[in-house]
Amino acid sequence: MNTDGERMYKFAGDLFPICRSITGEGVVKTLSMISDYISAKMTIHQVPSGTQVFDWTVPKEWKIRQAYIEDEQKSKIIDFQKNNLHVMGYSAPVDKWVDLDELKKYIYTQKDQPDVIPYVTSYYKERFGFCMSENQKNSLKEGRYHMYVDSELFDGNLTYGEVVLPGQTQEEIFFSTYTCHPSMANNECSGPALAAELINWIDKRKDNRYTYRFIFIPETIGSITYLSRNLEHLKKHMKAGFVLTCVGDDREYSIVESKYADTLADKVLENVLSYHAPQYKRYSFLNRSSDERQYNAVGVGLPVVAFSRSKCGEYPEYHTSLDDMTLVSESGFQGAFDVMTQVIEALEYNYNYKINIVCEPQLGKRGLYPTISQKGSYDEVMAIKDFIAYADGRNDLIDISNIIKVPVKRLCTIVDQLNANGMLEQKR
Amino acid sequence: MNTDGERMYKFAGDLFPICRSITGEGVVKTLSMISDYISAKMTIHQVPSGTQVFDWTVPKEWKIRQAYIEDEQKSKIIDFQKNNLHVMGYSAPVDKWVDLDELKKYIYTQKDQPDVIPYVTSYYKERFGFCMSENQKNSLKEGRYHMYVDSELFDGNLTYGEVVLPGQTQEEIFFSTYTCHPSMANNECSGPALAAELINWIDKRKDNRYTYRFIFIPETIGSITYLSRNLEHLKKHMKAGFVLTCVGDDREYSIVESKYADTLADKVLENVLSYHAPQYKRYSFLNRSSDERQYNAVGVGLPVVAFSRSKCGEYPEYHTSLDDMTLVSESGFQGAFDVMTQVIEALEYNYNYKINIVCEPQLGKRGLYPTISQKGSYDEVMAIKDFIAYADGRNDLIDISNIIKVPVKRLCTIVDQLNANGMLEQKR
Amino acid sequence: MNTDGERMYKFAGDLFPICRSITGEGVVKTLSMISDYISAKMTIHQVPSGTQVFDWTVPKEWKIRQAYIEDEQKSKIIDFQKNNLHVMGYSAPVDKWVDLDELKKYIYTQKDQPDVIPYVTSYYKERFGFCMSENQKNSLKEGRYHMYVDSELFDGNLTYGEVVLPGQTQEEIFFSTYTCHPSMANNECSGPALAAELINWIDKRKDNRYTYRFIFIPETIGSITYLSRNLEHLKKHMKAGFVLTCVGDDREYSIVESKYADTLADKVLENVLSYHAPQYKRYSFLNRSSDERQYNAVGVGLPVVAFSRSKCGEYPEYHTSLDDMTLVSESGFQGAFDVMTQVIEALEYNYNYKINIVCEPQLGKRGLYPTISQKGSYDEVMAIKDFIAYADGRNDLIDISNIIKVPVKRLCTIVDQLNANGMLEQKR
Repeated sequence: MNTDGERMYKFAGDLFPICRSITGEGVVKTLSMISDYISAKMTIHQVPSGTQVFDWTVPKEWKIRQAYIEDEQKSKIIDFQKNNLHVMGYSAPVDKWVDLDELKKYIYTQKDQPDVIPYVTSYYKERFGFCMSENQKNSLKEGRYHMYVDSELFDGNLTYGEVVLPGQTQEEIFFSTYTCHPSMANNECSGPALAAELINWIDKRKDNRYTYRFIFIPETIGSITYLSRNLEHLKKHMKAGFVLTCVGDDREYSIVESKYADTLADKVLENVLSYHAPQYKRYSFLNRSSDERQYNAVGVGLPVVAFSRSKCGEYPEYHTSLDDMTLVSESGFQGAFDVMTQVIEALEYNYNYKINIVCEPQLGKRGLYPTISQKGSYDEVMAIKDFIAYADGRNDLIDISNIIKVPVKRLCTIVDQLNANGMLEQKR
Repeated sequence: MNTDGERMYKFAGDLFPICRSITGEGVVKTLSMISDYISAKMTIHQVPSGTQVFDWTVPKEWKIRQAYIEDEQKSKIIDFQKNNLHVMGYSAPVDKWVDLDELKKYIYTQKDQPDVIPYVTSYYKERFGFCMSENQKNSLKEGRYHMYVDSELFDGNLTYGEVVLPGQTQEEIFFSTYTCHPSMANNECSGPALAAELINWIDKRKDNRYTYRFIFIPETIGSITYLSRNLEHLKKHMKAGFVLTCVGDDREYSIVESKYADTLADKVLENVLSYHAPQYKRYSFLNRSSDERQYNAVGVGLPVVAFSRSKCGEYPEYHTSLDDMTLVSESGFQGAFDVMTQVIEALEYNYNYKINIVCEPQLGKRGLYPTISQKGSYDEVMAIKDFIAYADGRNDLIDISNIIKVPVKRLCTIVDQLNANGMLEQKR
Repeated sequence: MNTDGERMYKFAGDLFPICRSITGEGVVKTLSMISDYISAKMTIHQVPSGTQVFDWTVPKEWKIRQAYIEDEQKSKIIDFQKNNLHVMGYSAPVDKWVDLDELKKYIYTQKDQPDVIPYVTSYYKERFGFCMSENQKNSLKEGRYHMYVDSELFDGNLTYGEVVLPGQTQEEIFFSTYTCHPSMANNECSGPALAAELINWIDKRKDNRYTYRFIFIPETIGSITYLSRNLEHLKKHMKAGFVLTCVGDDREYSIVESKYADTLADKVLENVLSYHAPQYKRYSFLNRSSDERQYNAVGVGLPVVAFSRSKCGEYPEYHTSLDDMTLVSESGFQGAFDVMTQVIEALEYNYNYKINIVCEPQLGKRGLYPTISQKGSYDEVMAIKDFIAYADGRNDLIDISNIIKVPVKRLCTIVDQLNANGMLEQKR
């Protein structure tokens, strides 16, 4: 297995079959596999059911063993063992024979996509339910049916994982991804796979300026729980944060901006995407869908954006049985990885720079500029001259990249050249 | 008479026949009819001719009894009794037989609209004149003509009316309309009719936060006179002001923005119009035409915009005999009334709101959000979630409406729901 | 010789034949001719070779007497006497017979314009070279060739000229143009010719508010040298500065904006051009090409833009033998002169104005407004009313021109009218 993309695709595939929910064994198993994959240490946190977290309460833990509907011939018309989307998430137990009419009250379908099994949950009100395709529902014959869910809802724990990679400063770059959906590939397994690969890459990188923090949580209740315990720390230290979700497919890149689109996270990701994939999609915070909701909420206000390829809710396979391993790809993962590593490099180099020479420096005598002047010979060296013009103490590296229209990637080389010549001051 | 629009149309028609000018009996009669129409008390102010008001002087009062031109056969070719536009406003008396050539020096027409009688005045230089259609002028035969104006210019008064509806605070919302044009429907009678109906509506509304002030004045000299007596009070208390003019026709809505388009009056009216009539016309202050000129003048600087349907000067019937009761309509009046009542509601609800819960509130447990999660089920509740996201103490209600693209009308309901749940703080 | 354009065209033609470089006799001769042309006194400055100026060193002085290539038949295939572009600027001496292959190493051509002789220099590394058309180079036959340059590089001086026209205040308007290119018309002679004519025009103008400073320097090393001696003075006194270059052709006008496009120089030139030539080209500082580079450099930061017709580097004849006196014209010069004199007038009148009357002034009684009011009669007086509305102490004259969309030229007349009526306060 050679490329990052291949590794991430394989790992996502390993995570795919597990039946996860916001609590329970599936989450624990998933965290354990991630812990094995990464080179750094993961801390596992457990928060008891019933704990008050801001306006919410940590729910009971859900254990699911079996779920099916069988007909009078004892033939299972749907079976949780075949596809864990067939049972509504957090279904209470049931064991009851009913008529077709009664059965239908407990069946959920996606009418506008009659072939798919939808993903449906009821976390905060106890009920049970089954999911199947609209076509299958319509084909059911009159008769008696056995609704069977062997599950438990009990006082247990909400479990999440946390990885910290210390840097030279306490300033933090934050990544959040979730581990709470059953067998869906893009809208579940891709996020943790990318996060795990980034951990390994950062862990190998030398002399990191920033401390990097990754959390693997259940969506919504997990981020609220995490914030209830860590809000002051994050407010003090977080410089930029990224929700990673739906990062494995091959479609266009996208960002969900922070509430006012004015944070360092917006700035660096939009800069990198503008060169890497100029047609990327900018969604305003009005189109938010994942944990960026909590990180930007009233009273929280952290500098967090979401990064995706196809954004949650904006692709047809979303939250259905079609979101399987054929929807994601090695190249899809690789592209997302390339963007996020560029983001990290840009942040690491992102100082406010100032040239310590008055007037234009004479680049020729330092071998940075041709000594013969003829028209047409300037273009290849304009990047360095433009960088020098705007490295006036007023702009950080990303500002300069935006102004002079040169990727940060290339400017990092120029910074190194000018530093080697002692021509540059840098400030945070 | 059932609808607001029907009542206003009828009242405008009652005001139409009166020969008004910037002073005189027509104004007094008009104010008396408005006073009878409204449920609140109107105060009548009189300012003597010769009073210095800033750079201007209150002119003499004008009394007009009769005016006509007759030919040698004693046939009246135009007659003030038939249409009061036939005499130039503020004409001095004359009683003289002249040749056609001499007569023509005193006849005013609208060359680019040869069928209409134009509306012409000469307030600040004493002269006399007659108005007729260009076609009629061209058809006049050689001969002797009798020019007759039975008028007086004498030391009298400039008269205006004022209505104040006190609210819970001394902060004021201001409305200005004029009562100085003779028989024109849109560019005269529509403004006072709408203002009178709004007075009755506000007077019935419970618990008004703001004090509402309406003035009925002659244009230009009236607003200058009013400002010369009330400028400090208005500077201290006025939050937003609206000139009401040309509000009875059925064409597109329009605003004339304040001098820098940056006042609460601009903000609230543009917000309401953007939902009520997205194709409304925004005229910059460079296109000003009525008393917004004085309210925004140097040394005044009040937060005042003008509200119209067809703006003064921008419709062909403007300042001609075509601006009659067929140009305005019940539905035209009703639309203008609906806009201004929405403006008032928006202002009354326009606080800076802040959710008093950290992270997203759990709306499900309060019955404000569905408990089952499936894609496609969110849209109808996004308005409340978006309101909550931006109710962070940084925005007032109109800001939030602009950001989340939901009409203030609907947000008022959400404010009531959240207040009922004790979730909201509000600040001025 | 009657018009400004005719005079400038003639003077540029007189300067054309001289072989200039960044130092040497050609510069001295050029400065002497400018000094003779202008009505004010020019000061000549000499800075010795080897002087350190910021990051640069003043180079040796270059003297060139003769340069050619001759073939075995002693026929000169190129000759400096015929066109001084044939020798690379700052060529060291050489006197050597070589084969064609060796010769070609020292020949510079413009491959994408095979008919032209390019302009090539090597100021800061000692070498020699010859320039010819690509076509001529390709037609050279095998054989022996004599490379001959009779030049000297010796410790001498860099020479520049300076003219100061004192005004009522020490605040300065600055003009910089260069005198360092050999026989090129637009990209050399046009700048000094325009600057010289402006000096004569300003010298005749009465009661100048500003002090005007003109410098005639070699590009780059000259502006760096000048700044190294005058930076503090310029930072303290300069209000706006203009690099004049390529101002003699008939194509579209252009500006190279200052680094952040936010100086008075940007504001006044863009205002004047927006009325004089609405299709003018705005180049951002990323497209800088002349001494605006130094004036805007880190540690300098002066309010300087460049003014051109065809901008340096953006027209095909640039830096080739095609940039001759047929490329420039009397009307081209005249247009540039008209723009810059309007710029100066706008600066001289550019105060922050405030009307000293509350509410609109009554213009009628001062003869500034018609006394009869009829629709269609307002337009010609709107400029004065709009000026009055925005002369509120918040805007300078150029701001008002931008807001009300009336040229400064016309507003100057209004300022005079209102001042004559005592209605205006002005502040710097």
